[in-house]
Amino acid sequence: MAKVESVSGGTVTSPSGFSAGATYAGIKKRGKGVLDLGIIYSSEPCTVAAVFTTNRIKSAAVVVNQRTLAKGGTVSAVVANSGCANSSTGEQGIDDAIETTRAAAKSLGIEPEEVLVASTGVIGVPLPMAAIYKGINQVALTADGGHDFERAIMTTDTSPKEVALRVSDSKTRFTIGGVAKGSGMIHPNMATMLVFLTTDAAVSPGFLLDSLRKSVAVSFNMISVDGDTSPSDTVVVLANGKGRNEPIGHGSPLADIFQKALERVCVYLAKAIARDGEGATRLIEVTVKGAATLDEARRAARTIVSSNLVKAAVYGRDPNWGRVTAALGRSEIDLVENKLDVTMAGIPVLEGGRPVAFEREVAVKALGKDTVPIVVDLHLGREKATAWGCDLTEQYVVINSAYTT
Amino acid sequence: MAKVESVSGGTVTSPSGFSAGATYAGIKKRGKGVLDLGIIYSSEPCTVAAVFTTNRIKSAAVVVNQRTLAKGGTVSAVVANSGCANSSTGEQGIDDAIETTRAAAKSLGIEPEEVLVASTGVIGVPLPMAAIYKGINQVALTADGGHDFERAIMTTDTSPKEVALRVSDSKTRFTIGGVAKGSGMIHPNMATMLVFLTTDAAVSPGFLLDSLRKSVAVSFNMISVDGDTSPSDTVVVLANGKGRNEPIGHGSPLADIFQKALERVCVYLAKAIARDGEGATRLIEVTVKGAATLDEARRAARTIVSSNLVKAAVYGRDPNWGRVTAALGRSEIDLVENKLDVTMAGIPVLEGGRPVAFEREVAVKALGKDTVPIVVDLHLGREKATAWGCDLTEQYVVINSAYTT
Repeated sequence: MAKVESVSGGTVTSPSGFSAGATYAGIKKRGKGVLDLGIIYSSEPCTVAAVFTTNRIKSAAVVVNQRTLAKGGTVSAVVANSGCANSSTGEQGIDDAIETTRAAAKSLGIEPEEVLVASTGVIGVPLPMAAIYKGINQVALTADGGHDFERAIMTTDTSPKEVALRVSDSKTRFTIGGVAKGSGMIHPNMATMLVFLTTDAAVSPGFLLDSLRKSVAVSFNMISVDGDTSPSDTVVVLANGKGRNEPIGHGSPLADIFQKALERVCVYLAKAIARDGEGATRLIEVTVKGAATLDEARRAARTIVSSNLVKAAVYGRDPNWGRVTAALGRSEIDLVENKLDVTMAGIPVLEGGRPVAFEREVAVKALGKDTVPIVVDLHLGREKATAWGCDLTEQYVVINSAYTT
Repeated sequence: MAKVESVSGGTVTSPSGFSAGATYAGIKKRGKGVLDLGIIYSSEPCTVAAVFTTNRIKSAAVVVNQRTLAKGGTVSAVVANSGCANSSTGEQGIDDAIETTRAAAKSLGIEPEEVLVASTGVIGVPLPMAAIYKGINQVALTADGGHDFERAIMTTDTSPKEVALRVSDSKTRFTIGGVAKGSGMIHPNMATMLVFLTTDAAVSPGFLLDSLRKSVAVSFNMISVDGDTSPSDTVVVLANGKGRNEPIGHGSPLADIFQKALERVCVYLAKAIARDGEGATRLIEVTVKGAATLDEARRAARTIVSSNLVKAAVYGRDPNWGRVTAALGRSEIDLVENKLDVTMAGIPVLEGGRPVAFEREVAVKALGKDTVPIVVDLHLGREKATAWGCDLTEQYVVINSAYTT
């Protein structure tokens, strides 16, 4: 059985053959140590898979990437900038995104179709192309440049989100790395979810896409900071085959272990995003089990973790299960009230649909911990899902309203 | 053509034949002028129609009222209390709600099946029946008791919500009155939407229900304070026929004017609830027009008015149209980005999907007014809908998290 271990200081450049770098191109306001443009590069062409925002309004980068991926070729680089989302910018925006792929291709000696782009920042403002050109030519790619790349895409994030896992046995050794930036406000101070995943495993394109979709379903699709999706949301995985493994496809011996490892990387990054939601002080982890269908379990968990009232209660360390059941009740799932069990921070608060007496001080203390688990058992079936979010604080309102006042 | 005029100081006792009253029964914490139990009574049996919460977890009052209405008889009274929601209270809760109808029926000399009940307040705590009995016997019914009734159902509301309209011409004279309590947190300090409407018009039961449903669709179903529905949400209309009008049914000459008047009463109360959302400083009025279908117009308007980011932007007087289009984009409606027009507080901010230059100071000033209209034109069809909500403030978080901290 292959061993899966976390790589100390792991990031997108942990897998073999990947380098990265970042620079201050002049898109964001200047400040000490500010980076606003980064590149990930693979020395070998990569199999690629991606999922993009479901928002009907898509940024230029998303539109251009979708066209690139539709051609079905390999990808060797990603160029990402913060400070400008290049969204609601019309045909000019599309042209600028294509021009960015050309400039990066020229600098890296590859084809424009091998370059993906990502932009996060102010909506409705054209990409400052002079800065983009300058930045692309300034970036120095290094074997541990993933950390700088991550810093170049951060916006309202308060901490970097990076991870890598290594899978190995006598015949196998590959690594999966990832970086992410978090979500919150969309404009003016940016925010969007961008996730870049790299691996040196050899993986078939079809399997890579399925594996990414499955992983996203249990990770990035199960987090909520404020319920708003951005026109730029993007998750990309690049696989360059520089590691040592039997090629992975549907049904191959390593398929399961690759899937599990990718899922772990995604869940790690998703939780990091949720914990670092704007103004957040705590991670909320809602598990709904005993559901009749997986879809219902997911919907119920997401509805509870997204409820402003639940989020405010966790902030106030209030064992207020009435808000949990109210959110559950409006999630449009099957439920039988007198079968419901609920625990908050490990404390049973509802059993068989009826309140359980508990020591308030004990509950308040438990709800004060960094991570607050809420578990709902519907006792109707065997399906189960977990969703992550953060508490709602005055600071969230301050961050998102303090633009002009 | 009949004249429709607003009744000065109008409330549920404005229509003929209705009296009401309220008392301090001892359910809420005692305080100066606190009322916690109220009764509306009609001297004539009323045709009745109601809509209840869509939450899968329903309070005992909702369950008992639904049974009562299923029998199809007339109704003569409503007993409502604040301070205890009688929700998540199992069979005991049902028994207590039925016992309340019996006590009120006995006190009023009518049948228990002629009494509707409503409770708002803490979830998971049994109704204090001794206080309920005492309160019912204490209430004195008067011809202008609607104002006291309204005060007895208020919880976190900061102002009463009452209105009445009179419809008259040479042969017709009837009045529609209404009171409402607002929504916000569910437990512990209550909140739930309760709306009681009365009229002395003679109206057929089928028409009354259709007319109520149509009115609710454009009023109470188009407001959002925080997206959470309560197990107790209830809208009831009682029609006692004591006014002067040709009986109103489907297709009768007065059908339209009754429908319009009921709608106006409901929209007035719905806007009052939205404006008085917890912590709110402003009313947000989102109109989506040019939609392909009415359902899409409604969905889009509701999604925008419910967005935390839009709500926080309005609080901050931030003409941040990127948040409006981001919410629109995730509302799962048809849209064509380069057809989109958006105005905020009357100022064009997006035309044909592209940003419009505007004077920031002018926009900030306009967004500081009591009511902030946001208009989206999709330019795809002829359907239109308006939704109302309130801004998101630090005070909302304080109110909803300050229970134990």
